[in-house]
Amino acid sequence: MALRGLLRLGEVAVRVLDMGEAREHYGKRMGLHEVMTDAAGQVYFKAWDEHDHHCLVLREADSSGMDYFAFKVFDDATLDELEPKIRAFGLQVERIAAGVYPKSGRRLQFMLPSGHLMQLYAHKEQIGNSLGVRNPGVLPDEGVIRGFRINRLDHALLGGVNIDESARLFREVFGFDLSERLIDAEGGQSLALFLSCSTKPHDIAFVLQPTPGRFHHVSFLLESESDVIHAADLIGKYRIPVDVGPNRHGVTRGMTIYFFDPSGNRNEVFSGGYVHYPDTPTLTWDTTELGHATFAQDNVVRESFLTVLTG
Amino acid sequence: MALRGLLRLGEVAVRVLDMGEAREHYGKRMGLHEVMTDAAGQVYFKAWDEHDHHCLVLREADSSGMDYFAFKVFDDATLDELEPKIRAFGLQVERIAAGVYPKSGRRLQFMLPSGHLMQLYAHKEQIGNSLGVRNPGVLPDEGVIRGFRINRLDHALLGGVNIDESARLFREVFGFDLSERLIDAEGGQSLALFLSCSTKPHDIAFVLQPTPGRFHHVSFLLESESDVIHAADLIGKYRIPVDVGPNRHGVTRGMTIYFFDPSGNRNEVFSGGYVHYPDTPTLTWDTTELGHATFAQDNVVRESFLTVLTG
Amino acid sequence: MALRGLLRLGEVAVRVLDMGEAREHYGKRMGLHEVMTDAAGQVYFKAWDEHDHHCLVLREADSSGMDYFAFKVFDDATLDELEPKIRAFGLQVERIAAGVYPKSGRRLQFMLPSGHLMQLYAHKEQIGNSLGVRNPGVLPDEGVIRGFRINRLDHALLGGVNIDESARLFREVFGFDLSERLIDAEGGQSLALFLSCSTKPHDIAFVLQPTPGRFHHVSFLLESESDVIHAADLIGKYRIPVDVGPNRHGVTRGMTIYFFDPSGNRNEVFSGGYVHYPDTPTLTWDTTELGHATFAQDNVVRESFLTVLTG
Amino acid sequence: MALRGLLRLGEVAVRVLDMGEAREHYGKRMGLHEVMTDAAGQVYFKAWDEHDHHCLVLREADSSGMDYFAFKVFDDATLDELEPKIRAFGLQVERIAAGVYPKSGRRLQFMLPSGHLMQLYAHKEQIGNSLGVRNPGVLPDEGVIRGFRINRLDHALLGGVNIDESARLFREVFGFDLSERLIDAEGGQSLALFLSCSTKPHDIAFVLQPTPGRFHHVSFLLESESDVIHAADLIGKYRIPVDVGPNRHGVTRGMTIYFFDPSGNRNEVFSGGYVHYPDTPTLTWDTTELGHATFAQDNVVRESFLTVLTG
Repeated sequence: MALRGLLRLGEVAVRVLDMGEAREHYGKRMGLHEVMTDAAGQVYFKAWDEHDHHCLVLREADSSGMDYFAFKVFDDATLDELEPKIRAFGLQVERIAAGVYPKSGRRLQFMLPSGHLMQLYAHKEQIGNSLGVRNPGVLPDEGVIRGFRINRLDHALLGGVNIDESARLFREVFGFDLSERLIDAEGGQSLALFLSCSTKPHDIAFVLQPTPGRFHHVSFLLESESDVIHAADLIGKYRIPVDVGPNRHGVTRGMTIYFFDPSGNRNEVFSGGYVHYPDTPTLTWDTTELGHATFAQDNVVRESFLTVLTG
Repeated sequence: MALRGLLRLGEVAVRVLDMGEAREHYGKRMGLHEVMTDAAGQVYFKAWDEHDHHCLVLREADSSGMDYFAFKVFDDATLDELEPKIRAFGLQVERIAAGVYPKSGRRLQFMLPSGHLMQLYAHKEQIGNSLGVRNPGVLPDEGVIRGFRINRLDHALLGGVNIDESARLFREVFGFDLSERLIDAEGGQSLALFLSCSTKPHDIAFVLQPTPGRFHHVSFLLESESDVIHAADLIGKYRIPVDVGPNRHGVTRGMTIYFFDPSGNRNEVFSGGYVHYPDTPTLTWDTTELGHATFAQDNVVRESFLTVLTG
Repeated sequence: MALRGLLRLGEVAVRVLDMGEAREHYGKRMGLHEVMTDAAGQVYFKAWDEHDHHCLVLREADSSGMDYFAFKVFDDATLDELEPKIRAFGLQVERIAAGVYPKSGRRLQFMLPSGHLMQLYAHKEQIGNSLGVRNPGVLPDEGVIRGFRINRLDHALLGGVNIDESARLFREVFGFDLSERLIDAEGGQSLALFLSCSTKPHDIAFVLQPTPGRFHHVSFLLESESDVIHAADLIGKYRIPVDVGPNRHGVTRGMTIYFFDPSGNRNEVFSGGYVHYPDTPTLTWDTTELGHATFAQDNVVRESFLTVLTG
Repeated sequence: MALRGLLRLGEVAVRVLDMGEAREHYGKRMGLHEVMTDAAGQVYFKAWDEHDHHCLVLREADSSGMDYFAFKVFDDATLDELEPKIRAFGLQVERIAAGVYPKSGRRLQFMLPSGHLMQLYAHKEQIGNSLGVRNPGVLPDEGVIRGFRINRLDHALLGGVNIDESARLFREVFGFDLSERLIDAEGGQSLALFLSCSTKPHDIAFVLQPTPGRFHHVSFLLESESDVIHAADLIGKYRIPVDVGPNRHGVTRGMTIYFFDPSGNRNEVFSGGYVHYPDTPTLTWDTTELGHATFAQDNVVRESFLTVLTG
């Protein structure tokens, strides 16, 4: 059966310290397409191969970090089904009317145990990927794929407390798989949990942090490892601060590069990774292989990668 | 919600004229791993990154073609739910006990309107992808990824009559999306239908043919376009008859090469293609763009590709 | 010792039937940079990573084909040394004063035994590759690498009579290596000869044709096989007529695609190929492996590739 | 004119602390082909696509580092021509008879001003690249390209004193180009010098060090950036200590990874880089861009890369 319930991470709302610098970073350099500025001055972006109106919302603020993230669900009835289940799980659910969020249908909003504001919505205006739907072809016009050649918003990694509880919500209420986990080799405590609602190795992930509601990174999908290398070349050209990469994750097996936006929010572009199915065994990494789990091409444990978060 | 219902094409049973040549082709050259020969002399193969025991079964026979194809479903309860629905759709369903098919739980079997024998099963012995599930790493030992560097069985294209009816079964009973379709520009008749139960552009596809039960090709997933080129080099080295490629499909946007096994069955290896979701608009190609729909890098309409099938 | 004598194919002059279409093809689509139009209406192009002012000159005419090709030599003294040797070989040499060809120093011009007009020059204005020479960086600004992402003019394949004699000039007078040759398996006659003055598998090549002075193709270097695939996607998008490819040559081992400009002149873009040195053995292909020698990924002998030439 | 004089770096002799570990590293893991052990227990390796008998000689010793490096020259007459010129430059030249070095013709040996023992030879037994010279094909049999998929020995970077003098020998006596240099932004002192005798960005390079005769790294050529990533995966799998990478050099524009053999000798595998010609302007980097010059994808100045050498 095709995907039902929660389909994908459809929107991430990020706080930036300077909107001009942020537009330069996400638009001109990364090559996301700026599609709208709202009355409050928030700026909206989409990746070229997405059909929905936007996937990234930037808000200028005094601190960086993530305001909320939102999953698109299959249909309106899914929202009706999920609302009581989320309440039954023990969370308060706020109903947000259609139109409050631009181009968007009604939403449900709730705070995860890990301290992250999450939303669900079933509808967002579709503006297409520029190829059309009749004899669409395979390549858009020159200039559409630009900058880092980003295809799609892919996933986010969130840092917080009680990550087992957040993961339990995704597994028990939203029906996600636990594709991988990183545990403490001594006590067995969950240090990072990777959850999939698709054939991707993860659609959302949580990493244990001493404080709730932290933002580790938002990740965008590239088409190939060649494009990862190309993005790395541009990152170097623009002197964008690099956290790690290019390197390959042990977890997910994706080829990755981490870098920071001008406000200090971590971004990732990546490509590859294995195909996950519900019958794929959960993969478990422990801290004896922390280096290989995180960066499998040099096995270096990078303190900054584990401790620098925003929000 | 993670995938439920039908998960993926899990098994294709192909007839070959000479088992020795077939083992050379699928095992030594393509690099699939031979895992078993059964009492009847059938030979079983798996791709390296699959966890299940096998994905391809070869039977020596007087004619080439496909005996059946099988989808793995989420669990046993799924079989119970689907059986009456398939009957209600109008098909006869045969129950096959666990163990009749080696390493496999019980199966449901039925004949599609297009003339193809289809099976469903929920269980198959898992032997893993050789990486293990605890600190698995990202690369298996040398020799595991070999030949064409095939990751997984991906999909099949089946030729037959009444393909709209077969597609209706997949959409209405199995919950698949119609991701793409090729229609006659004049009459609007469906010429080929592409159906997805995942984020892949297709998990199964049908192409209209004058006779039922025909086998167009079975397709295997490679990790990158580099691997498509590498496979093409090996195909040329071994003088494997090539049908088309390397080239890119308009439909699915995958980079592909088609070739024939020694019995004349068409194989595909491919990489890439866009990410499909249930809210992705169905893409429609018509015969005015038949060349671009099939092979978008030269737009040539290849008669053989449309008319040469086995089975 | 660094390269001396003839350095590289530095300029090809091609006749086109319609300059507007040709500018669209070579400039907008292939992505070469138009740098000048001269008083006679000839249009000049360069590839992004070349330092010299131009590598391709287009002239509107009633027939397609090649007017001349020119090698850049190490210095002016090289011209002085070569002139008597070319005469001693038996060819008439015309001296062309500096400035007759725009941005160019003086030239020597002579007709090859195969019927092709060849020039040598030591100086051409250098305008750089846009990266500069002080802390140049690795990637030019966006828009500089565009279209087919062509790095450089690479080589030309010329069709004609007496190709052994033309090759003898390159070997004995110009000091080229015979890197590869294709011979008739029966009589041993040379059908194609590949000559290198560098570590490239060929800098110039000749293919036997019944008439002199024919133009088979001009070839441009891409950075990677990924870029070959990208160029193939654009070729398909623009409905540029494809001759062959993507495919890999047996000769040179390069990954290639052949296509035609709007006037019917054949172009190639390619990437890869082995490293040639003077002590690399000459590789000999014969007509029993004509398919593999030309297109090693499917071994098909393509009549059009061997017989369609311009000029 | 095809290459004359010094053709290429043909042999590097490296000291290792434990031959068993070294054979595992260079043979089993990197995938070089072990071709011989001599009477003294030295072990010889070749890369698959080279025609000469070997390119790497390992000697077990109490300290790591490089014993000597050797360039292959065009022919015996080249040795005769060069010997007096090297003496005239001020170096003592030792003649080594044919056969002293196995599979090798006579050699000239001299000490560079930077403190490195250099040899020249014109002949080494050719054993081919396994493809043959008649209808060779493009891919060797499976198992020939293995491990890191190394094509060739490419270059070495040597650390020492008086590097301007060593470079002057290569430029004035051997006719190399200075393709790139890194200088102190203040005093203009040469910190690293890159020299080419081909179309490669460098065939040999020197980096200033406080002591003579130091060995920075030996470098091997891979066919593609995909292969660099594949090598990085294997490096991570085998827990080979990584110095830097994957990353792209500013100097040469090659995509690289640096790692250490079990004795602490630095190795590089790389792919790509621009095409150099004698008329390509020398590129100058200064210490204000030391990060970008060395690793252009993150611009980080890595102390270890500049200070850790063997020998």
